[in-house]
Amino acid sequence: MLSVTGKSLVGYSNVDSGNLFFYAINPSTYQALETRFVQATPDEVLLACQLAKQAAPHFGNALSERVILLNRIADLIEQHAAQLIHTFCLESGLPQTRAEVELKRSCFQFRSYAAALKSGYCLQVVIDEADANRLPSPKPDLRKMNVPLGPVVVFGASNFPFAYSTLGGDVASALAAGCPVIVKAHPMHPHTSELSAQIIATALKELHFEEGVFSHLLAADYHVGEQLVLADEVKAVGFTGSIAGGTALVKLAQSRKEPIPVFAEMGSVNPIVFTNASLEENHTQIAQLVADSIALNAGQFCTSPGLLFVIKSERTELFKQQLTKLITEKEPQCMLHPGIFLNYEKRVLEQFSESEVLVDGTRSENHIQPSLAKVSATEFVANPQLQEEVFGSFALIVECENKTELLKALDAIDGQLTGSLFLGSNESEQEVIQVLQSKVGRVILNGVPTGVEVSVAQNHGGPYPSSSRLDTTAVGADAIKRFMRPVTFQNCPDDILPEALKNSNPLRILRFVNGNYTY
Amino acid sequence: MLSVTGKSLVGYSNVDSGNLFFYAINPSTYQALETRFVQATPDEVLLACQLAKQAAPHFGNALSERVILLNRIADLIEQHAAQLIHTFCLESGLPQTRAEVELKRSCFQFRSYAAALKSGYCLQVVIDEADANRLPSPKPDLRKMNVPLGPVVVFGASNFPFAYSTLGGDVASALAAGCPVIVKAHPMHPHTSELSAQIIATALKELHFEEGVFSHLLAADYHVGEQLVLADEVKAVGFTGSIAGGTALVKLAQSRKEPIPVFAEMGSVNPIVFTNASLEENHTQIAQLVADSIALNAGQFCTSPGLLFVIKSERTELFKQQLTKLITEKEPQCMLHPGIFLNYEKRVLEQFSESEVLVDGTRSENHIQPSLAKVSATEFVANPQLQEEVFGSFALIVECENKTELLKALDAIDGQLTGSLFLGSNESEQEVIQVLQSKVGRVILNGVPTGVEVSVAQNHGGPYPSSSRLDTTAVGADAIKRFMRPVTFQNCPDDILPEALKNSNPLRILRFVNGNYTY
Repeated sequence: MLSVTGKSLVGYSNVDSGNLFFYAINPSTYQALETRFVQATPDEVLLACQLAKQAAPHFGNALSERVILLNRIADLIEQHAAQLIHTFCLESGLPQTRAEVELKRSCFQFRSYAAALKSGYCLQVVIDEADANRLPSPKPDLRKMNVPLGPVVVFGASNFPFAYSTLGGDVASALAAGCPVIVKAHPMHPHTSELSAQIIATALKELHFEEGVFSHLLAADYHVGEQLVLADEVKAVGFTGSIAGGTALVKLAQSRKEPIPVFAEMGSVNPIVFTNASLEENHTQIAQLVADSIALNAGQFCTSPGLLFVIKSERTELFKQQLTKLITEKEPQCMLHPGIFLNYEKRVLEQFSESEVLVDGTRSENHIQPSLAKVSATEFVANPQLQEEVFGSFALIVECENKTELLKALDAIDGQLTGSLFLGSNESEQEVIQVLQSKVGRVILNGVPTGVEVSVAQNHGGPYPSSSRLDTTAVGADAIKRFMRPVTFQNCPDDILPEALKNSNPLRILRFVNGNYTY
Repeated sequence: MLSVTGKSLVGYSNVDSGNLFFYAINPSTYQALETRFVQATPDEVLLACQLAKQAAPHFGNALSERVILLNRIADLIEQHAAQLIHTFCLESGLPQTRAEVELKRSCFQFRSYAAALKSGYCLQVVIDEADANRLPSPKPDLRKMNVPLGPVVVFGASNFPFAYSTLGGDVASALAAGCPVIVKAHPMHPHTSELSAQIIATALKELHFEEGVFSHLLAADYHVGEQLVLADEVKAVGFTGSIAGGTALVKLAQSRKEPIPVFAEMGSVNPIVFTNASLEENHTQIAQLVADSIALNAGQFCTSPGLLFVIKSERTELFKQQLTKLITEKEPQCMLHPGIFLNYEKRVLEQFSESEVLVDGTRSENHIQPSLAKVSATEFVANPQLQEEVFGSFALIVECENKTELLKALDAIDGQLTGSLFLGSNESEQEVIQVLQSKVGRVILNGVPTGVEVSVAQNHGGPYPSSSRLDTTAVGADAIKRFMRPVTFQNCPDDILPEALKNSNPLRILRFVNGNYTY
């Protein structure tokens, strides 16, 4: 049984020398929980950075040991599942079924990244052998592989206490990459975060890793995060949250003497397009799928659908009625935090003031029912505010007169994580797919955007502002590559080369050698 | 025979409505050349951007046609080689042998990127098939591939009129990626640049590509470049040049409503470390290699060696004497431009004022001999100015008392493109390699940094400030990926999928399917 202390973890030491305190709350009762959490001090932050820098070279080279570490973390998560899930629910207001799914997802993430590391997938080894006889000059031997960037700071997300926080994708991918990690815990779920940190520290200690591979810092205000992003020792940042938050971190990181990359996964309204043929075939089933997706966990997902594009017709009218009915019937759900609730309420009212209200769900004492509104395509194109994210269950139907209006409306949207298209059986709609593809990171056919499969073929990212780095994914083994960079070794004798590049391929990893993939 | 007009090329039209004019010079005689070049106007710049946006979707999808295009450009370069080489030498002051090598390199680049495109290497297709029976929920079908970013602006470099300019690596990789390209020509070699543009336009016209895939804009001041980087239609920037120039472009691109990536390859001083054992075995041969590398083409390379690290010993003293002798014997060479010459002179004198002068080469009428100076490791660590790049043949010997001082001095250097290490036969020096690897993009054993092989295993990039994006290379087929981003298609019916993702693999490209690479 683990126990929450309210202290930060710097290397292997619990520290609490600060004098700024904060408490988590139970969002379903508004009651503060009892543990007093102590914000990390500037000295503690600095020490975490220094320890991370010291630990970086050895950890970066310890590839096989990291495979064991990631699997061991997954095992320990399962071992402590009951306690973790109980704590998760207590301070997030999310239902137990969700906590269970998210915990499984975290475990799968650690294990699948361990597998990607072991197979060499993330190292991207490319070997182009020498040709001493080439004219006019000999061709050198070139061998390229990915190496870790160095210490990484990860900001926990409010809405995924497991899967995008201390046991989440950014931490798993940075550790897999070989980067020491300093987590800035999200203050809405510090209990869950501290227990998660203890699990990682336990695995590291058991496997005799150097102190400094991992630190976990508590903070209620922005000072700790700011100090971390500006620290010389830190070489990259992972963040999941608001556009404002992500953009501020990117600016801060760019202001450094040595700018560093920030992988910020930010807002998205996840447009869904419905063709009339799709509704002709299937409108009740589609309405059910979409209503459930909008309502899921009070819509507190980066992939929650917020924009529904339809073309006027009789069947569209039926679809709208059906969706309205289903949305109206949804039960109220608890939001993560009163702050998130208040922001949701403000945003819904802003959207309502610019649109026709179809469902005005209840909003009371941190609990909400989904809301639904409608605008014309002309209004949508004229008013960029209408496409701004509402964090929580809210969707806006954009009603187009015809396909030309639809394409124009789609062209007006900013970058998104996902774009969905419901098609009739014999349709292809290449124009719509082309414009969706130009705006999003994932195109979904005949499905809703919620539910992000952890897969090497996944892309969870997209053009700005959905992500600060449209070339990267936050989910799937390619996420590991974010925290690495290539280095080429030229004419390096075999006995000096890193293991991954030696002729005999002692790690038995997948490599691209003279134009072919081989093991 | 092509002929220079002094006009910009916007789509397929020659334009010259502006009233700002400039001339190139012959740097070996200081004489202005006769063609009057007309700076592109804001309207011309805008039109180039709009045409590029229009051309983007079709060009992005025309994968097989792009393979033909890249090969055809290479053929046309060879067809016009004599005229190109003559023009290159006239306005760059570089010798004919260099022009010939650079032209061959440009051709090889276009052809090897065509091959990488054809093989599917740059598309990075990853397929993870559905599993309808998975519990608790079915696994979706996910298929990921790279798609082009959209219109790319490329700034021609002063020092490589072929290989990093209009026929250079950024243009070749952006075209391969499927991005329309707008080149901002470098004003030091506008003749070469315009002829190069005509070759690209000829190939595009012959193959019936849409207007707007390529434009070529002339400019003597910064206004054209600024307008391009801020244009909504532009989605990425390629740049090779100074740290100040690259940093300014990154800031500008970050200031946009939609920030865009800037791939800036900037300064580097390319440290070389010599162990005493290597000098014991080989000091005269090594001195020859290094002297030649420093002197090559007046040192106007991003990979010119600027810092030489040695540990004091009798043999080191002999090496220093030999290097001094060889450097002193080097003939004066013409620099690219009086502006570059004046800046070189200023920087050499600045470095001399902080160091012991070993060779004070002649500097007269745009021609220079290499210079050489020396400092102690203590002085080097204390004075960051000493590691700033001198663009042109200049190297600074950093003399260390022992290995501890050497490691400390190496740890003090900023990010570099390359780091070299000369070793004795039985040495491995893992500590030195580890610190070099943490600072550079390419580690070279027993060799000099000049000469950047175009290879898929090449990494021409490195930590800041050598590059603005340490995760990318400017040379080799991986450079193509800079101008692409991943998109995943989820549960997309086979007949709707892009060719690259269809079950039957009609393009016969390399794909990662369910964990295995297959054709």
